[in-house]
Amino acid sequence: MIKVGIVGGTGYTGVELLRLLARHPEVELVAITSRSEAGLPVADLYPSLRGHVDLAFTVPDTDLLASCDVVFFATPHNVAMQTVPELLQRGTRIIDLSADFRIRDAELWSRWYGEPHACPDVLAQAVYGLPELNRERIRDAQLVACAGCYPTSVQLGFMPLVEAGLVDTQRLIASSASGVSGAGRQAKVDNLLTEAADSFKAYGVAGHRHLPEIEQGLGDMAGAPVQLTFTPHLVPMIRGIHSTLYAQLTQDVSLDALQRRFEERFADEPFVDVLPPGTHPQTRWVKGSNVCRLALHRPQGRDTVVVLAVIDNLVKGASGQAVQNMNIMFGLPETAGLDVIALLP
Amino acid sequence: MIKVGIVGGTGYTGVELLRLLARHPEVELVAITSRSEAGLPVADLYPSLRGHVDLAFTVPDTDLLASCDVVFFATPHNVAMQTVPELLQRGTRIIDLSADFRIRDAELWSRWYGEPHACPDVLAQAVYGLPELNRERIRDAQLVACAGCYPTSVQLGFMPLVEAGLVDTQRLIASSASGVSGAGRQAKVDNLLTEAADSFKAYGVAGHRHLPEIEQGLGDMAGAPVQLTFTPHLVPMIRGIHSTLYAQLTQDVSLDALQRRFEERFADEPFVDVLPPGTHPQTRWVKGSNVCRLALHRPQGRDTVVVLAVIDNLVKGASGQAVQNMNIMFGLPETAGLDVIALLP
Amino acid sequence: MIKVGIVGGTGYTGVELLRLLARHPEVELVAITSRSEAGLPVADLYPSLRGHVDLAFTVPDTDLLASCDVVFFATPHNVAMQTVPELLQRGTRIIDLSADFRIRDAELWSRWYGEPHACPDVLAQAVYGLPELNRERIRDAQLVACAGCYPTSVQLGFMPLVEAGLVDTQRLIASSASGVSGAGRQAKVDNLLTEAADSFKAYGVAGHRHLPEIEQGLGDMAGAPVQLTFTPHLVPMIRGIHSTLYAQLTQDVSLDALQRRFEERFADEPFVDVLPPGTHPQTRWVKGSNVCRLALHRPQGRDTVVVLAVIDNLVKGASGQAVQNMNIMFGLPETAGLDVIALLP
Amino acid sequence: MIKVGIVGGTGYTGVELLRLLARHPEVELVAITSRSEAGLPVADLYPSLRGHVDLAFTVPDTDLLASCDVVFFATPHNVAMQTVPELLQRGTRIIDLSADFRIRDAELWSRWYGEPHACPDVLAQAVYGLPELNRERIRDAQLVACAGCYPTSVQLGFMPLVEAGLVDTQRLIASSASGVSGAGRQAKVDNLLTEAADSFKAYGVAGHRHLPEIEQGLGDMAGAPVQLTFTPHLVPMIRGIHSTLYAQLTQDVSLDALQRRFEERFADEPFVDVLPPGTHPQTRWVKGSNVCRLALHRPQGRDTVVVLAVIDNLVKGASGQAVQNMNIMFGLPETAGLDVIALLP
Repeated sequence: MIKVGIVGGTGYTGVELLRLLARHPEVELVAITSRSEAGLPVADLYPSLRGHVDLAFTVPDTDLLASCDVVFFATPHNVAMQTVPELLQRGTRIIDLSADFRIRDAELWSRWYGEPHACPDVLAQAVYGLPELNRERIRDAQLVACAGCYPTSVQLGFMPLVEAGLVDTQRLIASSASGVSGAGRQAKVDNLLTEAADSFKAYGVAGHRHLPEIEQGLGDMAGAPVQLTFTPHLVPMIRGIHSTLYAQLTQDVSLDALQRRFEERFADEPFVDVLPPGTHPQTRWVKGSNVCRLALHRPQGRDTVVVLAVIDNLVKGASGQAVQNMNIMFGLPETAGLDVIALLP
Repeated sequence: MIKVGIVGGTGYTGVELLRLLARHPEVELVAITSRSEAGLPVADLYPSLRGHVDLAFTVPDTDLLASCDVVFFATPHNVAMQTVPELLQRGTRIIDLSADFRIRDAELWSRWYGEPHACPDVLAQAVYGLPELNRERIRDAQLVACAGCYPTSVQLGFMPLVEAGLVDTQRLIASSASGVSGAGRQAKVDNLLTEAADSFKAYGVAGHRHLPEIEQGLGDMAGAPVQLTFTPHLVPMIRGIHSTLYAQLTQDVSLDALQRRFEERFADEPFVDVLPPGTHPQTRWVKGSNVCRLALHRPQGRDTVVVLAVIDNLVKGASGQAVQNMNIMFGLPETAGLDVIALLP
Repeated sequence: MIKVGIVGGTGYTGVELLRLLARHPEVELVAITSRSEAGLPVADLYPSLRGHVDLAFTVPDTDLLASCDVVFFATPHNVAMQTVPELLQRGTRIIDLSADFRIRDAELWSRWYGEPHACPDVLAQAVYGLPELNRERIRDAQLVACAGCYPTSVQLGFMPLVEAGLVDTQRLIASSASGVSGAGRQAKVDNLLTEAADSFKAYGVAGHRHLPEIEQGLGDMAGAPVQLTFTPHLVPMIRGIHSTLYAQLTQDVSLDALQRRFEERFADEPFVDVLPPGTHPQTRWVKGSNVCRLALHRPQGRDTVVVLAVIDNLVKGASGQAVQNMNIMFGLPETAGLDVIALLP
Repeated sequence: MIKVGIVGGTGYTGVELLRLLARHPEVELVAITSRSEAGLPVADLYPSLRGHVDLAFTVPDTDLLASCDVVFFATPHNVAMQTVPELLQRGTRIIDLSADFRIRDAELWSRWYGEPHACPDVLAQAVYGLPELNRERIRDAQLVACAGCYPTSVQLGFMPLVEAGLVDTQRLIASSASGVSGAGRQAKVDNLLTEAADSFKAYGVAGHRHLPEIEQGLGDMAGAPVQLTFTPHLVPMIRGIHSTLYAQLTQDVSLDALQRRFEERFADEPFVDVLPPGTHPQTRWVKGSNVCRLALHRPQGRDTVVVLAVIDNLVKGASGQAVQNMNIMFGLPETAGLDVIALLP
């Protein structure tokens, strides 16, 4: 059994980790920390876990965490980077769900997150935790920085096109839309039901923190810098991300050929599902599951290709992907604990 | 492995059965029928099942169904009763999710459902499929009539009070509220998002078909006829039933004593969770899971006791309960295939 | 033109007052105060008002407020009672949307609101602002305490029954449900879309602050104390209150006779609409409008009568009722500025 | 008073016309037709209109319609074009909310709508009813073809850019999102709350009927054919359209200069509100009102300009725009009957 610790379990990615890990056949939950809720049984905060999780939140205890085989950080940015260096030194493996180690360039990170990076020297050893891109490096990593929610959907959707050099990488557009859980479990007026329900809006159009992360990943695929216009939107729903991706073909490739390329690229991926061309995936098709479902379109046969990609932002976009990374790191079947079927309707 | 057939799998209780049975360790899905969708892969209708269910819908074939160990009917009322008699004769066990065999009195059934019962002689052998009430009889039953969704929540909530004779059974009130999936997957204007979202209404106040079913069940507990005022409401949500139950105490019993009685009554029940007194259960605490969560209140210390009960109408209120009944009928652990944690948020 | 001041305009009842008053033919908006947002144009906080309201929020200025013909308080409880006495002395008329002056008994108020009342001597001159109950007294009142949202729906629904002595007033039950805007525009985790959407719950079952207000009002109608079990619920919608009211008939009265009594009682009321018996009113039928729509049921012909009542909690349950009270106080047509048709769908 | 007839009043654009016209100071409603609901009082179908509209639906009567000053067609496509020629001959003015007369090229219309156009010779006299583009021609038109919902938001958002020749008109992208009311009041499984709520999807990506309409309008502005990639999405909300528009600048123009151009272009428009640059408009800011609110962005200072535009699809996208056209046609103040403030929250 893998001994697991979770730092910062009161948020949505925390409870989602618990939902998945409580049923994982190879995991023993050792500790879940929260300064603010220390002493409170987890199931009192999340009654959905009554009968499934008996732990109570505890104050973070480095010795206890260091004794775990792996520690998940389900914290806001700027928390993990304070503690991770010590845990790494003591040999613990780390899966960070936050943004602290996603961007290799400390200066770039600092510009977008508004503060200096606490351990820029550690960045080099962090492996970007998108299994479809980095599976081999994840296997042996001590520190995995899980890909963000929007970045997962956008990178998976563009991946076969960019890797094959089929599109203009200076004019990429991602029009993405997320459920409100992407904003976390924080008391903010903007995310009240009364403010967010029965309405739709874009946000962060001038610049969202996921932009440099996505451009870094797409740049790796392209082997050269790319330019992306990224516009996130807020959907009055709880979970789910839908990305509508636009790219200009630089070669004349048929929709069928594009489809084959996508199918080949993801043929061995347990959590990427390439739908028949012309399909319109719905976020509810993946609600609660770790799958990314993708579909290709080429409207009017013109040279703009449109990729539609859906994920559950809390699963493939966060906690499920973290478990997938753990499975890879510990040599388990990649689907262990992740055989959850989407809840529909 | 138990060979399972499903009749009428295109509706919401059908897809929910598939979600649960596809992961059930002791089940082999043999057939799923639908006249209208014959030939269509199930996963084309419900893409959430892609990669989990390979079957296609087929035209109902009595020989094939008769060869199953158990056949689930996930059909509208007035379908099962046409086919069940023949399957019973051929020795197949039946779990009917519809209303056809829930009411013992054929004449009463006929009055509420507006047509004669097709096989009144079969009614006597049907066992009402509410495990908390009838577990022993379900074990050996050949035909189980699963309790309805509202009736499950209302009966479980009143059960300890009525069995113990603590309340006036001539003045019971159940103010229940259901998500829209209770109406099934049928194209009706009333259930369009544009009609049902951002609004709330009662319906069927003059008389809902679940009333005689509930009064029959409560009458069995009381050992005498009861009178219930039952007002269902439609909530702009997908899943979930919340019942607010009102009963007049006929004895002076403290809230603590009532609480103990509830806890004792359900101590061995794997799918009934008695919450601390004063709790306000939320339907999302059971979304996707087979649990009924209950809480007791006695407002102002007066003699009206209020019980709050929540279930997922498609799980404990339908398909999950059906699987629980199957587990009992076949001597399996009652929780087999039902260890699903509610999806929250 | 009536000079109007609004204290506390940043909340939902504040913006709703502005929506109605901006189009009121006899009103001149003089000031709208908010300490926290002083200096901010109202339309920056509520862009829906761009082009309709040019005011900016200002710090409260007693002289300016005292110069108004009427001042609305759209504040949380315990704010109005600090300022109202001085304004009364200076001759200003007050319409308070908060709870400060709704309960005549200062000790009772104190017990439910957890603090002493700041001006118990003023309570006697406050007129409870439910026009259908108190129209004549409102006309000449200097201080009107607008009825609360739940209390409006519950009192209007029970009114003809209780006034006529037709029901057992010791066993009244109100199972009410409100949209989330009833909780105001405050950053609370419980009211996030992620917490409140796609779910349903009761709250405050042990005792809600509207209980003593309703019992006071019903007691006035009955001429004797009444007992009510009141259970509010939270609906995943923005606006609307639906009350399902249960009362035991103490006389044998036909549904037709009850219907006639309701129609007669409200025949001259511009904002109470008695629907045909058997109707199931929906909250969206009154969304944005000042109407209360009511319908009567007598399930199974038994002696429990069920009244269904819907209002928009922010209009007839708050700001619309406040404007209706203003119209009465200033001798205007009662419907002035309130001729808004519900927004459907 | 202008005598008004409405053909096809049972749908959402019909009830919305009634909501607006019932309060219009210069309108007398003469007839509202529906074959299927003939005889039914309008307020029985739409109880929100109780007390405001006394008409009943009637079977279409050409003589009665011809006696009106203006007839609105709130019908599905392929209905108006059967009747309009006769009414035109008899001198009646027509405002068609459907798609029948929006596209000047009958062959193009036929290709997208799948049937021959019934009166291609009438197309030439139809004026495209987007006041901001065609106000002068609308004034004297006998037949106005109201702009569609998506087309209104997309054309208004691109208008200043395209008219000024600032962007590459061969690479325009519109990623639009609509509430479910855009699909009308028809019983379709896809639009059930259970199918559309808590989810998000694109649809019609390969080709949506609004594409040729938009390209025609933008082409008129550009003076040459344009190419647009148009991807509509379905949002789990009732009303509202949000368009996110992407265009490549072909000149180096600052965001400030673009902002000024937008402000100048719409300076005299009563129903276009140019927000400060960097604003993220929300659909609820226009819910129930006839305004289009727009905002400009230039992410990362790169050469892709992003315009965000919101409208209420049933008002500025349909019935409100129809009333605006009527006001222009009859020389009334353009805002008559349209002074509705958005309902927020």
